[in-house]
Amino acid sequence: MRNAIAPAQGKLGVLIPGLGAVATTLIAGVAAVKKDLAQPVGSLTQMGSIRLGKRTEGRSPKIKDFVPLANLDELVFGGWDVYADNVLEAAMKAKVLEPMMLHAVRAELESIKPMKAVFDRSYVANLDSTHVKEAPTKAELAKALMDDIENFRDANDCTRVVIVWCGSTEKYIEVSEVHESIEAFEEGLRNNDPQISPSMIYAYAAIKLGVPFMNGAPNLTCDIPALMELARQTGTPIGGKDFKTGQTLMKTILAPGLAARALGIKGWFSSNILGNRDGYVLDHPDNFKTKEVSKLSVLEDILQPDANPELYGDIYHKVRINYYPPHGDNKESWDNIDIFGWLGYSMQIKINFLCRDSILAAPIVLDLALFADLAKRANMSGIQEWLSFYFKSPQTLPELRPEHDIFKQLIKLQNTLRHMMGEDLITHLGLDYYQDLVETL
Amino acid sequence: MRNAIAPAQGKLGVLIPGLGAVATTLIAGVAAVKKDLAQPVGSLTQMGSIRLGKRTEGRSPKIKDFVPLANLDELVFGGWDVYADNVLEAAMKAKVLEPMMLHAVRAELESIKPMKAVFDRSYVANLDSTHVKEAPTKAELAKALMDDIENFRDANDCTRVVIVWCGSTEKYIEVSEVHESIEAFEEGLRNNDPQISPSMIYAYAAIKLGVPFMNGAPNLTCDIPALMELARQTGTPIGGKDFKTGQTLMKTILAPGLAARALGIKGWFSSNILGNRDGYVLDHPDNFKTKEVSKLSVLEDILQPDANPELYGDIYHKVRINYYPPHGDNKESWDNIDIFGWLGYSMQIKINFLCRDSILAAPIVLDLALFADLAKRANMSGIQEWLSFYFKSPQTLPELRPEHDIFKQLIKLQNTLRHMMGEDLITHLGLDYYQDLVETL
Amino acid sequence: MRNAIAPAQGKLGVLIPGLGAVATTLIAGVAAVKKDLAQPVGSLTQMGSIRLGKRTEGRSPKIKDFVPLANLDELVFGGWDVYADNVLEAAMKAKVLEPMMLHAVRAELESIKPMKAVFDRSYVANLDSTHVKEAPTKAELAKALMDDIENFRDANDCTRVVIVWCGSTEKYIEVSEVHESIEAFEEGLRNNDPQISPSMIYAYAAIKLGVPFMNGAPNLTCDIPALMELARQTGTPIGGKDFKTGQTLMKTILAPGLAARALGIKGWFSSNILGNRDGYVLDHPDNFKTKEVSKLSVLEDILQPDANPELYGDIYHKVRINYYPPHGDNKESWDNIDIFGWLGYSMQIKINFLCRDSILAAPIVLDLALFADLAKRANMSGIQEWLSFYFKSPQTLPELRPEHDIFKQLIKLQNTLRHMMGEDLITHLGLDYYQDLVETL
Amino acid sequence: MRNAIAPAQGKLGVLIPGLGAVATTLIAGVAAVKKDLAQPVGSLTQMGSIRLGKRTEGRSPKIKDFVPLANLDELVFGGWDVYADNVLEAAMKAKVLEPMMLHAVRAELESIKPMKAVFDRSYVANLDSTHVKEAPTKAELAKALMDDIENFRDANDCTRVVIVWCGSTEKYIEVSEVHESIEAFEEGLRNNDPQISPSMIYAYAAIKLGVPFMNGAPNLTCDIPALMELARQTGTPIGGKDFKTGQTLMKTILAPGLAARALGIKGWFSSNILGNRDGYVLDHPDNFKTKEVSKLSVLEDILQPDANPELYGDIYHKVRINYYPPHGDNKESWDNIDIFGWLGYSMQIKINFLCRDSILAAPIVLDLALFADLAKRANMSGIQEWLSFYFKSPQTLPELRPEHDIFKQLIKLQNTLRHMMGEDLITHLGLDYYQDLVETL
Repeated sequence: MRNAIAPAQGKLGVLIPGLGAVATTLIAGVAAVKKDLAQPVGSLTQMGSIRLGKRTEGRSPKIKDFVPLANLDELVFGGWDVYADNVLEAAMKAKVLEPMMLHAVRAELESIKPMKAVFDRSYVANLDSTHVKEAPTKAELAKALMDDIENFRDANDCTRVVIVWCGSTEKYIEVSEVHESIEAFEEGLRNNDPQISPSMIYAYAAIKLGVPFMNGAPNLTCDIPALMELARQTGTPIGGKDFKTGQTLMKTILAPGLAARALGIKGWFSSNILGNRDGYVLDHPDNFKTKEVSKLSVLEDILQPDANPELYGDIYHKVRINYYPPHGDNKESWDNIDIFGWLGYSMQIKINFLCRDSILAAPIVLDLALFADLAKRANMSGIQEWLSFYFKSPQTLPELRPEHDIFKQLIKLQNTLRHMMGEDLITHLGLDYYQDLVETL
Repeated sequence: MRNAIAPAQGKLGVLIPGLGAVATTLIAGVAAVKKDLAQPVGSLTQMGSIRLGKRTEGRSPKIKDFVPLANLDELVFGGWDVYADNVLEAAMKAKVLEPMMLHAVRAELESIKPMKAVFDRSYVANLDSTHVKEAPTKAELAKALMDDIENFRDANDCTRVVIVWCGSTEKYIEVSEVHESIEAFEEGLRNNDPQISPSMIYAYAAIKLGVPFMNGAPNLTCDIPALMELARQTGTPIGGKDFKTGQTLMKTILAPGLAARALGIKGWFSSNILGNRDGYVLDHPDNFKTKEVSKLSVLEDILQPDANPELYGDIYHKVRINYYPPHGDNKESWDNIDIFGWLGYSMQIKINFLCRDSILAAPIVLDLALFADLAKRANMSGIQEWLSFYFKSPQTLPELRPEHDIFKQLIKLQNTLRHMMGEDLITHLGLDYYQDLVETL
Repeated sequence: MRNAIAPAQGKLGVLIPGLGAVATTLIAGVAAVKKDLAQPVGSLTQMGSIRLGKRTEGRSPKIKDFVPLANLDELVFGGWDVYADNVLEAAMKAKVLEPMMLHAVRAELESIKPMKAVFDRSYVANLDSTHVKEAPTKAELAKALMDDIENFRDANDCTRVVIVWCGSTEKYIEVSEVHESIEAFEEGLRNNDPQISPSMIYAYAAIKLGVPFMNGAPNLTCDIPALMELARQTGTPIGGKDFKTGQTLMKTILAPGLAARALGIKGWFSSNILGNRDGYVLDHPDNFKTKEVSKLSVLEDILQPDANPELYGDIYHKVRINYYPPHGDNKESWDNIDIFGWLGYSMQIKINFLCRDSILAAPIVLDLALFADLAKRANMSGIQEWLSFYFKSPQTLPELRPEHDIFKQLIKLQNTLRHMMGEDLITHLGLDYYQDLVETL
Repeated sequence: MRNAIAPAQGKLGVLIPGLGAVATTLIAGVAAVKKDLAQPVGSLTQMGSIRLGKRTEGRSPKIKDFVPLANLDELVFGGWDVYADNVLEAAMKAKVLEPMMLHAVRAELESIKPMKAVFDRSYVANLDSTHVKEAPTKAELAKALMDDIENFRDANDCTRVVIVWCGSTEKYIEVSEVHESIEAFEEGLRNNDPQISPSMIYAYAAIKLGVPFMNGAPNLTCDIPALMELARQTGTPIGGKDFKTGQTLMKTILAPGLAARALGIKGWFSSNILGNRDGYVLDHPDNFKTKEVSKLSVLEDILQPDANPELYGDIYHKVRINYYPPHGDNKESWDNIDIFGWLGYSMQIKINFLCRDSILAAPIVLDLALFADLAKRANMSGIQEWLSFYFKSPQTLPELRPEHDIFKQLIKLQNTLRHMMGEDLITHLGLDYYQDLVETL
């Protein structure tokens, strides 16, 4: 049985750790959209529609007209950063949007100043920081973040808050003992356990307060037993990891297509060049490792080499990220895919994607904020697997294989919305259209 | 209610009009696979698997182990061609497979000699022909084809026969009066109506005999009211049009991916270079027109510009095919896609596909032959929309919009198989996995 | 013996038939450079340097410091167009330069208004015109142009004038009787001979007055015996045809490189997409034909298939231009080159050039204007083969094979400048550096 | 004054350290060419021609008909390797040539067995070796190599021998004291100085005997003062370093073209994927470093950023080599070049080269062997700068800047040949053709 969904009344605070290229592109964009200067392209919640009923009914409302989402007018943005720049200054440095566009929403951006960040250089070696919280223990840092959240909520008169992590990729760590239970984790906060990363402190603070938390980077963050348990206890939606943009987006589009046709794959070489802060952070091997794990798992899941050894058993998959300043935020990817078909004859696909990282990521942040808030109001707590669509490395129950195929992810998302609103799920069977022709079916 | 499916007993005759590059690659390939010299990669019926039940059940049988298909050992190949070359000679001229591979199945190929073709130069200007049937009327040509089919069946001791059109693309024509009813069509056959093309005569002969007919070229062929009606009367599965390979395959993979993310598209430029007989035929504007219509409709359907005018209302879509002899059968495509995202910022995707046309098409012919035979045994007559997966321009009821999204096509195909075998349809909802966490759902 | 060169005193008028994308980009650019807002990149005369003497001397002055060229401050621009827009308006429509850049030189551009053009729709079918001269005969049109030139010179106080054709590509015609002698040509002007195109009338007017004339389009224009003879009589430098930009530029860079290494070429497929007025005009087959001839000859000359039949005897060369509005002035080319090496093994090169047509062409116009004026002052009349560097289809004496290899063209240009200034020509022999080691050389 | 050239009488021994993919492709190829089974494409000495005199004379003999080179029939191959495989076995493992081609020259290849190599694991970490010389000192190893050379010469009845290094890239080292003089070097040989690499021992052995030595890898080898001095004393031609194939070949073709047009360059990103032994060795950072230095210097020299700071002062140049087994010897490169033109407007060039490493390198080895022998017979000793054409990092006198522009390198090579044979050097001035038109010039 489905839940009643509480209405989206009052203001929704959207708090973002990491007010860099992605976050400032989102905030400036929402301001511009509200002034009718531009369209929120790439946002499913704003531009997407959803088919209901049979093909012949012609019912395809916009998603925002179908499910009760917060309206853009009700959003209030804020966040934390390791630099003290206000959002206008940060957006100018990010060089994603044109000066003229920023100029048009100047006032809205200038007024948003980051709160001091929780930061630990040992997790992001290539970043300096000048605007960070100081406290003797991680528990006190968590407390400070909770105060920030509540102060922001009260100051801005919000009825709800959601948090979306847009900070840098932290170095690679694995789940260890301190992550296994709420007790161990809270003990670790008090003891400054080095295995508790800054992003985990943010996630803890949010979840403790029942504030939905979505993780846009590949770090573990809320993907640990302690925080999953806490989310369940506090009725908090959580999700992650790593916004699916650029090359991986293309990969989760293309790989299912090749697999659909039972075409074999011998090798997939992926190279990226980018020149923004993200590229600079990922130039450090520890941080790249976290990203690499996130990027490599994608093909493994979609192709299932164990089940299809003749087609995908010998695939050689390599991903490279190269810092290349001339491109700035314009990430460019180049893929070479060695496939084989009938009788093993080989073919090649080359894809060159001249993309803009933050332009692809910003609408994902918006959608996640709105859907996380919806989930909260629908009493859907814990891991939101139906939001896998947005992530390179979707968080699921440990016993489930994550689904990377973007088309299955989309059906899951859409059927979840249909289910929430009491509509029929769609199976694309459609034999009934031919019923009169095929009486016995 | 689903049908009982008759078992696949006895030999299945596979008759092919057009024993050129695609057909010979198929026939040689099946022979090689039977000798364990190579794998039938790209064939869903042979290599594909299908998930049944819940994710956690781990049930994913091969499709050929799930539905009762004819076994490769029971297939007998034959066909018609405008040249008298046997299949070995035709395969050598096609230069798709290596001489060594052909050598290994030499005997099987030499023994297959084409029957004389029904041909009309006014439909394929760039082809000469030396091996064609002569008769005063098209009705008599149809009769001759029916005799061919029955003789082949008896001579080879087949219990069933299917036909898959692999001939050249005919010139562009539209549905006209002679195509509107069985009576008008049969009158036209007797009067040599010029609007009845050779491929229609083949289709008529097949359907009249209850022999399933699948159309691999973009010609109308069986996509006319007269033959749809006849198929229903004779209980014959039919389907088409135009095998989905190469660039269009990529397009139906990629476009749904972009649409899934609500990314806008301003332009899509598609260029092809190829040097085989197909390329030569398509160098003639009349024949290219037929192909162009087939290729252009794809985006229109997937993107639905009328429903999403801000995203797809202004798309400029252009397709070019260039005859380029140095490449032979190695078709190469190059696509430039101009997309836009958040706030209208533009990005570009370039795809360079070094493919092999016949290697991609051959397994489609195999799958269609086997599935058409299955449909016949399951009493599914008329248009087989669930085989849209294999076609650039899927035949549907006139009142239905064809589905081009390859992922929806795949779900339709798989759910049809599940339905035929009495298994649950899959919706990818999956909220039940989280049931214990979200009790109220 | 070399000539004394008259100094570049006083103002130089630069008159341009066709004030479209290229011309307005040039004019706006020179204005911006004079204000120090941007650099004249791509202009050899402004940015290029030239090595003099031995490598070890370290003498590499800028070309503009080596030969006596007119200074940018002394240039005065004007021209003719079939539309009455002033240069600012035309530049805004061309959408090559950013509005901010145009704004900065607004006054300079607004003040330049085109004179009425000589135009003939039968030569450029896809263009409408609203601003053209009317006269009963082509002779009178020529006279009107001569008046324009002289009036412009006097009004602007110029000591010299040069003309560079930047108009659209005219339809394909071949040299015929009316082009064979001055007498026949002048007779044809009086009789309105249809074989005399508008561009020829401009060229005639210029050459008659001794005004250097350079042709940036592939039309015959001054590449006919009548005008070559006239140029010699009036001591006028002439040159053409067709500015070498984009794909052909790349081709004349790459082909000599492959030929240098004795690598074979089987095929070269070149596709272009562009959306500007040029692309629109070239969508008409008659105009494309003129362009195609110009583009195809390039490889023929560089590779010399007759002299190297094993390497280049079977080359299949195809060029396609596709009108594609989403790209505007951003011409994009894609080349596939099938090469072969040792023992005939094949390899492929793919080149994707995202270029800007007018950005590449504008500095060529500048260089040609300045070098043509230099030639005039150095008493070098007739065909200026040393300017082949700038042209897709260089005009030469009929008995000489044009040189397309851009590197030989550059050496020719540089050695001509060295020769003009009395410097040693450079042969790159350089054995003398090793003299002490190899005494006997 | 030029030298008399001794005739090419008798057999020429070609000894190769490193009988891997390149060497075996060369040896098999020469055997195939001698049997008329294939053509020596890519070899300037065999397929190239050279223009003599004025353009209108039409004199363009093949190079092999112009200068007295050794004939292919007189070549005898041999070499050293760290594995004991004969050339047929090594060629089969290299998988460059098709089995059918190798079969046709089976006997010639089987008969060539490598001599034991001088090897030092500390210089090539990723290679195992099973077939190496043992001796207490490097001096004795050098002696053993000299014995090998003389024994080979006598056993095969050769009048001359040349050596071309085709071994793996050694780790990066710089010139140090032991390399500074013959005395220090010979002392180092006796003391087993670790700064003396295996390739230096080969070079020493060759030069000591007056045997020309060419270096196809980027190691220092003979590019040290000690061996340059020795070469002069013994009258031995030497040259290097690093065969110019694939991506660098393209770079030295393209960069001069961009520079010719005074187009600016902001960034050049070069990625390579390859799966052969070379790729595996270069996966080790020490060995890649040697290669990287060789590859990066190319642009520096061609563009001369110090002389053209506005155009090339800020170029960001990055080269990556990725080991990617699915490709085998089929090296693939992908380049992104960010250029800018008129007023600083940016453009992009992408080059995707699907090349075959050994197919490009084999003819270079042949040419270097033949030209080195020619130089020896012409009494040209020491560094052969005129062979820069073949090298990524041409060896020159320390005080000279190496020339990387492949077109200047070609002119240097051709003018050297013309000079050797007493023909006029070519300057491409060509004003004389227009003499009658321009009397005063």
